[in-house]
Amino acid sequence: MTDAPTETRLERGRRLLNQIDGEGGERVVAALADLAPDFANYLLEFPFGDIYARPGLDLRSREIATIAALAAMGNARPQLQVHIAAGLNVGLSETEIIEILMQMAVYAGFPAALNGLFAAQEVFRSHAA
Amino acid sequence: MTDAPTETRLERGRRLLNQIDGEGGERVVAALADLAPDFANYLLEFPFGDIYARPGLDLRSREIATIAALAAMGNARPQLQVHIAAGLNVGLSETEIIEILMQMAVYAGFPAALNGLFAAQEVFRSHAA
Amino acid sequence: MTDAPTETRLERGRRLLNQIDGEGGERVVAALADLAPDFANYLLEFPFGDIYARPGLDLRSREIATIAALAAMGNARPQLQVHIAAGLNVGLSETEIIEILMQMAVYAGFPAALNGLFAAQEVFRSHAA
Amino acid sequence: MTDAPTETRLERGRRLLNQIDGEGGERVVAALADLAPDFANYLLEFPFGDIYARPGLDLRSREIATIAALAAMGNARPQLQVHIAAGLNVGLSETEIIEILMQMAVYAGFPAALNGLFAAQEVFRSHAA
Amino acid sequence: MTDAPTETRLERGRRLLNQIDGEGGERVVAALADLAPDFANYLLEFPFGDIYARPGLDLRSREIATIAALAAMGNARPQLQVHIAAGLNVGLSETEIIEILMQMAVYAGFPAALNGLFAAQEVFRSHAA
Amino acid sequence: MTDAPTETRLERGRRLLNQIDGEGGERVVAALADLAPDFANYLLEFPFGDIYARPGLDLRSREIATIAALAAMGNARPQLQVHIAAGLNVGLSETEIIEILMQMAVYAGFPAALNGLFAAQEVFRSHAA
Repeated sequence: MTDAPTETRLERGRRLLNQIDGEGGERVVAALADLAPDFANYLLEFPFGDIYARPGLDLRSREIATIAALAAMGNARPQLQVHIAAGLNVGLSETEIIEILMQMAVYAGFPAALNGLFAAQEVFRSHAA
Repeated sequence: MTDAPTETRLERGRRLLNQIDGEGGERVVAALADLAPDFANYLLEFPFGDIYARPGLDLRSREIATIAALAAMGNARPQLQVHIAAGLNVGLSETEIIEILMQMAVYAGFPAALNGLFAAQEVFRSHAA
Repeated sequence: MTDAPTETRLERGRRLLNQIDGEGGERVVAALADLAPDFANYLLEFPFGDIYARPGLDLRSREIATIAALAAMGNARPQLQVHIAAGLNVGLSETEIIEILMQMAVYAGFPAALNGLFAAQEVFRSHAA
Repeated sequence: MTDAPTETRLERGRRLLNQIDGEGGERVVAALADLAPDFANYLLEFPFGDIYARPGLDLRSREIATIAALAAMGNARPQLQVHIAAGLNVGLSETEIIEILMQMAVYAGFPAALNGLFAAQEVFRSHAA
Repeated sequence: MTDAPTETRLERGRRLLNQIDGEGGERVVAALADLAPDFANYLLEFPFGDIYARPGLDLRSREIATIAALAAMGNARPQLQVHIAAGLNVGLSETEIIEILMQMAVYAGFPAALNGLFAAQEVFRSHAA
Repeated sequence: MTDAPTETRLERGRRLLNQIDGEGGERVVAALADLAPDFANYLLEFPFGDIYARPGLDLRSREIATIAALAAMGNARPQLQVHIAAGLNVGLSETEIIEILMQMAVYAGFPAALNGLFAAQEVFRSHAA
């Protein structure tokens, strides 16, 4: 993976966090500032600076994977909502996000799909507002 | 969703199972024949005849979602392997599948990613054989 | 399984959802109406029209299985509460439901059992009201 | 709960383990003898001496709950198989066990149901042998 | 394990619950009083009277294990908070607890670590108050 | 955190992987060499170069946390075994590891504890050999 010569992992991570998660991601980083500032850096560096920055899979596909995983696990509603918004940011339509969540009924059960759908509904409403 | 006029959910499911999961899916259906034949039908009808047949999300995207979910849950290795093969069938490259699995380290931890990667390695080898 | 000749899967599902989940189930279906109306149909058709409608296991036993599974998974409190109410609807006593939830301490740990018991307490109180 | 006057929790647990899990349970206890003998006692005392010994829910219902929970969690195949055999021991039919496992597709996804069904098939075959 | 001659499992459990979980534990036991009083006893007897009372691992180490497990499972926030407070009670520093939770990003993913950290923040604030 | 001036994250990670996981960790890194070499680097850099290298929690405590988390999650047996060996490497006794695993019965259920104990037994035997 090639970096802009002067961009550190942290800078690249911050750039990608902004591009992908937008405000929702910024809020998480800010919330960590007093509590665990090193963890805010790790969050920027590894998931965003390392993983999302990789070529080999486009951001739209990456958000499909993240939304599916978080909905299937069913125990990370705040992060699911950040990534539903991120999905919209990188070009997924509301319909596509609903399809992903419905499909999770097959692999993680109807409750996981329902809870994912209702989480998405909140995100869609606040985006429309 | 529009059906071919004479295609039942079961027929549509069987067609899609063949297209997506190929041999791996057929083996699962066959294995259920004596034990729980109605469940073989449900498997064809709901996941394949209903969900994968839906417009609104292409099969490549659907397999990204399934691979991510199964790798993140980490308790369904046989199904993960069927869907890694299915991902190859519907146009994902090995590189893209590896990217999806690596990304799961962020959401479900490094063990989930590692176990997913090693499961993929087995599938890739048997496909190459 | 034999259907009444004119009853579709959807109709049978709606009938069983009413019988089992009552108001709680109706609310879920209504909440999906704008967001994902096809998913409301799938929810009626597969879980209720297909699975709960099957002979071979009585509804009381089916609700024992559902309450146990949802309490053990520990990530689907709304659905657990719908099915605790459903358990009462199909003939489980409060005592029996408490026994099921206590038993989950053995298989999913004390936190899962505790969270299940407190979820049940809310349902019992609103039923008694 | 009243005990036979001279029966300790450990004795009652051993009696119930024998009655419910039979040989499969005995093997687990024996396997712990050198490694963690106190844990063998806890296993007899709390799950069997305390929980399964309670009035308020019959053993058939208790095994429905356990089979459902273990199949839904999907990460405890050896224990699921011990309790599928236990279900047969306390009066569940193979058909009823298959119904419970199929139902788990609704709450924990098709992979959990499939893996539960194939685990049951092995138990049924060795019982028939 | 040697008991004070006149201390029952229940008494020992109550003593250890007080020492470890303090007020948070007492509240859970009190909340069970009407709903499932036998379960309150089991909670005192098995986790506290049996497990935490064992020699062979100090309480500080035991709380590290519990905080890590509950954060990794990610579906038991009330119990995680009780045990973060318990960790402080038995001598873990806030810094050490933050380190444990950050480390969970490796094994259970960043969402589990983040949700654990935010749960800890609430506990730290109410302790400081 | 201060590094030795010439030690990169990767070098520090490799050093700590060797110190903590020993041979078991090396085998994982080697197995990734052809499949996903970047992921081998991430594994060295983030968990080992970043997290385990941090001051603020000693390695013995870190391994308690990891063993507890992996046993509780119950879906990562290979990694649990690597970290049981790692626990021995950083100074945990077999008895202490057994205590951690037994304690997981309280938080993740008896099956998780049992499967953890049997996984440990295999590691202890191969260490003794």
